[in-house]
Amino acid sequence: MASPVLPSSGVLSPLGLDSVRLAPGFWGDRVALNREVIIAHCQEWMERAGWIGNFRALGEDPSRRGARPRQGREFSDSEIYKLLEAMAWADHPALPELAATVARAQEEDGYLNTRWHDARYTDFEWGHELYCYGHLIQAGVARLRVHGEDELTEVVRRAADHICLRFMDTTETCGHPVVEMALVELYRVTGVERYLEMARRFVERRGAPALDDIPFGRAYFQDDLPVRKAEVFRGHAVRAMYLACGAVDVAVETGDGELLSAIEAQWQRTVARRVHLTGGLGSHHSDEAFGEDFELPPDRAYSETCAGIGSLMLSQRLLLATGDVRYADLAERTLFNVLATAPALDGRSFFYANPLHVRVPATPVEGINQGAEGGLRSPWFTVSCCPNNIARTYASLAGYVATAGASGVQIHHHTPGEIRHDGLALRVETGYPWSGEVTVRVLEGGPARISLRVPSWASGAQISHGGATRPVSPGYAVAEGEWGAGDEIRLDLPMTPRWTLPDRRVDALRGCAAVERGPVVYCAESVGDVPALALVEARVSPPVEHLVDGVVELDVESARLSPETGAWPYTPAQETESPDLSDPEPLRLVPYHRWGNRGPATMRVWLPATDRPV
Amino acid sequence: MASPVLPSSGVLSPLGLDSVRLAPGFWGDRVALNREVIIAHCQEWMERAGWIGNFRALGEDPSRRGARPRQGREFSDSEIYKLLEAMAWADHPALPELAATVARAQEEDGYLNTRWHDARYTDFEWGHELYCYGHLIQAGVARLRVHGEDELTEVVRRAADHICLRFMDTTETCGHPVVEMALVELYRVTGVERYLEMARRFVERRGAPALDDIPFGRAYFQDDLPVRKAEVFRGHAVRAMYLACGAVDVAVETGDGELLSAIEAQWQRTVARRVHLTGGLGSHHSDEAFGEDFELPPDRAYSETCAGIGSLMLSQRLLLATGDVRYADLAERTLFNVLATAPALDGRSFFYANPLHVRVPATPVEGINQGAEGGLRSPWFTVSCCPNNIARTYASLAGYVATAGASGVQIHHHTPGEIRHDGLALRVETGYPWSGEVTVRVLEGGPARISLRVPSWASGAQISHGGATRPVSPGYAVAEGEWGAGDEIRLDLPMTPRWTLPDRRVDALRGCAAVERGPVVYCAESVGDVPALALVEARVSPPVEHLVDGVVELDVESARLSPETGAWPYTPAQETESPDLSDPEPLRLVPYHRWGNRGPATMRVWLPATDRPV
Repeated sequence: MASPVLPSSGVLSPLGLDSVRLAPGFWGDRVALNREVIIAHCQEWMERAGWIGNFRALGEDPSRRGARPRQGREFSDSEIYKLLEAMAWADHPALPELAATVARAQEEDGYLNTRWHDARYTDFEWGHELYCYGHLIQAGVARLRVHGEDELTEVVRRAADHICLRFMDTTETCGHPVVEMALVELYRVTGVERYLEMARRFVERRGAPALDDIPFGRAYFQDDLPVRKAEVFRGHAVRAMYLACGAVDVAVETGDGELLSAIEAQWQRTVARRVHLTGGLGSHHSDEAFGEDFELPPDRAYSETCAGIGSLMLSQRLLLATGDVRYADLAERTLFNVLATAPALDGRSFFYANPLHVRVPATPVEGINQGAEGGLRSPWFTVSCCPNNIARTYASLAGYVATAGASGVQIHHHTPGEIRHDGLALRVETGYPWSGEVTVRVLEGGPARISLRVPSWASGAQISHGGATRPVSPGYAVAEGEWGAGDEIRLDLPMTPRWTLPDRRVDALRGCAAVERGPVVYCAESVGDVPALALVEARVSPPVEHLVDGVVELDVESARLSPETGAWPYTPAQETESPDLSDPEPLRLVPYHRWGNRGPATMRVWLPATDRPV
Repeated sequence: MASPVLPSSGVLSPLGLDSVRLAPGFWGDRVALNREVIIAHCQEWMERAGWIGNFRALGEDPSRRGARPRQGREFSDSEIYKLLEAMAWADHPALPELAATVARAQEEDGYLNTRWHDARYTDFEWGHELYCYGHLIQAGVARLRVHGEDELTEVVRRAADHICLRFMDTTETCGHPVVEMALVELYRVTGVERYLEMARRFVERRGAPALDDIPFGRAYFQDDLPVRKAEVFRGHAVRAMYLACGAVDVAVETGDGELLSAIEAQWQRTVARRVHLTGGLGSHHSDEAFGEDFELPPDRAYSETCAGIGSLMLSQRLLLATGDVRYADLAERTLFNVLATAPALDGRSFFYANPLHVRVPATPVEGINQGAEGGLRSPWFTVSCCPNNIARTYASLAGYVATAGASGVQIHHHTPGEIRHDGLALRVETGYPWSGEVTVRVLEGGPARISLRVPSWASGAQISHGGATRPVSPGYAVAEGEWGAGDEIRLDLPMTPRWTLPDRRVDALRGCAAVERGPVVYCAESVGDVPALALVEARVSPPVEHLVDGVVELDVESARLSPETGAWPYTPAQETESPDLSDPEPLRLVPYHRWGNRGPATMRVWLPATDRPV
């Protein structure tokens, strides 16, 4: 089964890339763009940056190690591995040659790292050696599931055996988690139990503590507390997500209900207090970290693309383990508002950070972007984790769409495609997220219970089949019966735009409101000489829909503030005036995931709302 | 005349330390603390950190240069110079020995720098060589004005001559301004015109551009535009202030009205859009820089102590040049809410950054603090510009209190002390800022026009003298007459606490209100197990005053929010509820400058205000 996560137990089992085929539509188009453009884009830039050359230099002549300066940061090997994983899921013809380049750099005992080869395991805090192995193993798992054994999978087995030999009986671990979940998947696909045991030990070691203290503080790499003792996700958001994924994987495979519950509780507290409206994670730029509870500044939102991917991976794991729809709900929010936002529409540039408010149009950067600010997409970054992470995730996206379980087939994400399971074949037809109409057509029938997710925002949804229509609540709409070819199930989700207000404890959003429609978060975007968004206040009145190039855009009423300023921006309370809303002007909102495709712009998701309830 | 800035022309002339003597009171107590504690504290820490040792190593045996590793950052020499300046203003007995240590490190041709001595002028962007000279020269100017020629002033003249010889005909300048204003003051005290010409050229060179580009961008060190072409202060706030001071000094001495007007316009635009309520400057931590217009986040406010000092220096220069009261108003705001905030009440620890909101109590740092976050004062920092800057500014603070001009004597800052000018002797008695009653008693009389500043917030002020009382408007209250010993002028400033609202364009303050009383900004501070401030909303109702240890504290009404959270912090607009204000509880507010003296705490100046006008 070709699925990026494949637990041996759990409430639901994923349907893999061999069971779900995406057709043209919101996600099918993006997966095709990935296969046709993004994967090649990443490979070209890693050739240009010399990161692939690092392997070549080591492989061609090991005796000349260090003769040519190595290129890239200490973790750049992982980028090649993420690309290999993308190629594996896409069954891409460029994989064997790139894998061979990697293979030639592996040492006799399985060690493989172009940065540390002559100074092995001397810096667990920042060295990223186990992190790199983690991504290597994930590439090998993808290859095994899609294709079977080959040179890459042999490299991966040797590396994993080396890790077990070297680390099974130490107290060490890596500053950046990922090897944990990778080893569990490798156990799942090979059945070799020491990989699971090694993963379990890496998870349990953390927080003993296992690493030296660093200026950011130990919470940065989640070494402040044992995983099962923590109450909330904290520190570097990508690290937090990857570690939680590994912990869930270990918990599921070892039957450790306490560990699973701990991660569920951390997820719940985090989602209630530390997640941006888009599903994005992270409020601090300096350490790419979660903020405190309710510290969710839209302008300083870091919301790293990779953290969104980590969140999707965690949601999927928790969904499979528990069958709880809230995990699929967050996954959808993250998919439409983080994962769909990062790549440009042409697939040739990417956001690293995904802030919810950009005050000043960004200045374009030539070549490799040294920063990670979210004002303008860049083709490549000094730390370029996000493009390859998008590539591997888009390449395996079909594996997130549907599951099967004791209670039948579940469709969690509504996008055109075909789903086959246990003799049943279904075709999903929908214009979602622009339309709320989802039709599931039976191609090959039989008795089955088919569940369609009804997102949490979809009050008033209806399901129709067999000539009957009935209301369905958020959760899963279940259609059960003896299906024949040509039968249809139709789900109608209400797509009326919604005004959303933040919790009163979110300081940075006080007095603001945002517009959502279906799973899509909207934003105002000012391109060119449109008045600065700082001078506009919105009115919480029903938005007007416009279909522009197949995409729903919205107009809301707004008042322009006077551009005049006084001598001092603080005024006695009794002298304050409200803006004049007697003659409102339309303010155009576009889907957040589409912003920034027309050049440097200002943008804001949260609109100052003059007449919002206090 | 012993004044830190002494222009040869302008509307007003400062009265120096020889004319103004502070008595016990708000500022007199702090100046005494500085002389008795802070100056010695700084010297001890710079001995401990090895920064003074850098001079000793170079001076004792120049042939062994580099034999002992140098301590501190590339600009640490400037810290010794700031301390020398503080000692000079305070006529401190430790000065000669410290000056001799510096003198022994000076090279034959006047060059003096412990970091770059063997790589002179190879890094103008970050090297800080001219910056260090600037502070050295300021120390020498203080020494000349208070004491006269000595070994230190000889070092300074040789350094200044070296600068003129080396830089008069180049296009170079320093990444960090300060040498400009220092050279103008040296010209003022010595009459040597090449110092003024050198300063003028440094000011005019900037923005040509004169420096290489850096990752922060050229605006960081104000090299993006010629000084006279800029419209607003931008980039690193301390650099921006110091450069503006130098530009005003050059403008005043060369009669360049265009340049003076340019700085006035930049000041005006900045004060209207880029200044925190406290007078603090800077919204970005990474580059210690101004934010965009109206980007004034209280939690991320950097508001560096040194930027506040730079702002005070600029306000004083603009006040002297123009006589415009708004400069004195901003100076007072900055004095009470930035300069009084930075040092602990015991003078042994300091804030570097002065944020207006701290969400989580800071963790105490042992020894030298590597960071600059504003949650807890530290005795010393890796970059420890602020303590010495406080020391030199407090030591010269009497020089900011009063001026003289064609229209008599002006008292700008109300604090107990004696002022002598031109045969007139006045004693100021006041409990300001806790009391609004200011009495000016004539000790030695004569015909005089005496002006007392009425701050911009003081609507309803009154002045009484000669048995008559009359209302006075913000600006200056003028009392003119033939004064005899024993005569009194009394100013009554209304001290009713005021609720203040932010401009609607300040995203980070929307829905909040702050309390001010007189020149003092107040804050809520939660020490120990007081409920988290995130759960409190204030009511815009009249505050109740309490006198606690001679300090006015205030109670405002507040509502506690329920600590319950839902599963997701964003809610449909129609489901939002307002907090219950039917049974308000008192919330204690303390002067912002006193917060953080009782240990780690949370704090906020801007209070979520449930019933503020929208």
